[in-house]
Amino acid sequence: MAAAAAANGTAVDLKAAFREVYLQLKSELLEDPAFDFTEDSRLWIEQMLDYNVPGGKLNRGISVIDSYKSLKEVNELSNDDIFLASALGWCIEWLQAYFLVLDDIMDNSHTRRGQPCWFRQPKVGLIAANDGILLRNHIPRILKRHFREKSYYVDLLDLFNEVEFQTASGQMLDLITTHEGEKDLSKYKMPVYRRIVQYKTAYYSFYLPVACALLMSGENLANFVAVKEILIEMGTYFQVQDDYLDCFGDPEVIGKIGTDIEDFKCSWLIVQALERANEGQMKVLYESYGKSDPTSVAKVKAVYGDLKLQAVFAEYEGASYVQLISSIEAQPSKAVQEVLKSFLHKIYKRQK
Amino acid sequence: MAAAAAANGTAVDLKAAFREVYLQLKSELLEDPAFDFTEDSRLWIEQMLDYNVPGGKLNRGISVIDSYKSLKEVNELSNDDIFLASALGWCIEWLQAYFLVLDDIMDNSHTRRGQPCWFRQPKVGLIAANDGILLRNHIPRILKRHFREKSYYVDLLDLFNEVEFQTASGQMLDLITTHEGEKDLSKYKMPVYRRIVQYKTAYYSFYLPVACALLMSGENLANFVAVKEILIEMGTYFQVQDDYLDCFGDPEVIGKIGTDIEDFKCSWLIVQALERANEGQMKVLYESYGKSDPTSVAKVKAVYGDLKLQAVFAEYEGASYVQLISSIEAQPSKAVQEVLKSFLHKIYKRQK
Repeated sequence: MAAAAAANGTAVDLKAAFREVYLQLKSELLEDPAFDFTEDSRLWIEQMLDYNVPGGKLNRGISVIDSYKSLKEVNELSNDDIFLASALGWCIEWLQAYFLVLDDIMDNSHTRRGQPCWFRQPKVGLIAANDGILLRNHIPRILKRHFREKSYYVDLLDLFNEVEFQTASGQMLDLITTHEGEKDLSKYKMPVYRRIVQYKTAYYSFYLPVACALLMSGENLANFVAVKEILIEMGTYFQVQDDYLDCFGDPEVIGKIGTDIEDFKCSWLIVQALERANEGQMKVLYESYGKSDPTSVAKVKAVYGDLKLQAVFAEYEGASYVQLISSIEAQPSKAVQEVLKSFLHKIYKRQK
Repeated sequence: MAAAAAANGTAVDLKAAFREVYLQLKSELLEDPAFDFTEDSRLWIEQMLDYNVPGGKLNRGISVIDSYKSLKEVNELSNDDIFLASALGWCIEWLQAYFLVLDDIMDNSHTRRGQPCWFRQPKVGLIAANDGILLRNHIPRILKRHFREKSYYVDLLDLFNEVEFQTASGQMLDLITTHEGEKDLSKYKMPVYRRIVQYKTAYYSFYLPVACALLMSGENLANFVAVKEILIEMGTYFQVQDDYLDCFGDPEVIGKIGTDIEDFKCSWLIVQALERANEGQMKVLYESYGKSDPTSVAKVKAVYGDLKLQAVFAEYEGASYVQLISSIEAQPSKAVQEVLKSFLHKIYKRQK
């Protein structure tokens, strides 16, 4: 109990210290000499940042610090190192905010992180699209200010550029697939699903934080292809959880009301259901999936229940865990193993 | 006549050669190993690029080649140099396409370059927001493929990042100002107007092409602050023309139907009109500006006519030219003077 409390205490301190760095980065951006702010525009940016950037779980951001600590194999990092790892962590949180603001517009979503989506604010509307762009543009501003003189600066820029490209390409695939799926539900198959998830979620959520920590440690990313593959697998597992929680999670806990069924999403649940449904169930899925009235949604959920998808998910979750641990333990470096296991344990059996 | 024909012939050849480079860059992007394309997604990108990237006047892109040629003080560039300058030129065209696709969504526009806006295509809709993001992401893909080993690679990345940040910040200022202006038209004043224009248009349209050419020539951009200022002034003049043509240009020639009056835009014309209107005219402007019915638009245009804004514009145009020529001739380098004059002569008294 005492150890757990201490570990928890440390996590709380770490999160508080991480949040402090947000405040510094925000003030720097609000005084950026590359733009001649008016009072109104400075206020707009500040509100937009506070609304969209720091309100998530911050797991992606904090994992840069955790990973860097493991890779350096030290108990305490210098203040400079903590600051730099935190700044990179925040760049990932900024990237996430950018994707969410734009995805919510494209998906016509209502709530995000327990509050209305940014574009739903009456004074915002489609200005949110440009705010998303600004969030994205803040990342190179942060990198230039704090990393311009580092030997790995150009690699950081290349990394963020490549991962953003992959994420946007995954989003395109998702949008096109949903378009096709609306005409023919049978397009939703496991290989399509995996490709969307890997590009749209896994690269930026799982590979990017570790890659940032590796660059800070002076490593060449070309030597970490196997690590990348494990992280992409972990990211796939994470998205399957997300799809599961969208339907079976507690909206109070996850901070949003899932609408994957209404939105005709190529979700892990519908892919699994289509693999298992009998003729009658298939008919219900074809008739009711992607409709927004509560009766149709309830019919789809009833088929999910009849097909015992909760048990199918539990089995998938267990098998993924075993498989991932085995790949991780095949890694030569103990420090790298520690980084990967820490990631896995943060998400295994998560409820939000 | 013969010299004009020959010069014209060269310009045509140059444009054709420039277009060839587009085809190569496009094929490379469609085979980018960083993303595992499906057939559908490859087709989508190809159509999206062809629809949005090459259909403009290409002045921004071609001016990189022209500027580089002047800076090198040679008549003929090597094929490699032509290709690289063209690739940078296309990066600017890609940047422009990205801004236009997103601006058209935010402004709820109808036509662009003589065709419906991309998001108005029935199969596209708000997917266009992600297509805009993809256009933006193609730029670092092009830069990495062709410039990764150049000594100025990191400066190119910094340059594109800074200019994109400034453009998005200018767009924010425009959106916020229009919001405020809708409540109180008197907010539309010359200093506000100039700030929007410089950030939203001048940096990427005028400074960026020359800065690309300077980097290719091995120059340090910190030594060209005065050149930057002249280009920003030229960009301001260019946007004033744009605002003028939106109302007084020929829609057939400019490729779109102007809607600045309907859209409550902080246009040079309304700023000038507010400076000059008597009490009665002011009342008409306050009552009719920003309304979309043809009668209101006609009333605003009548006030513009009564205030002789066409003559005011002609005078502004002449004075800007004299002022710019004088700043340009104060530049120590003849090659730089040539670059700047060539820019100015491309836009002076343009009709589209």
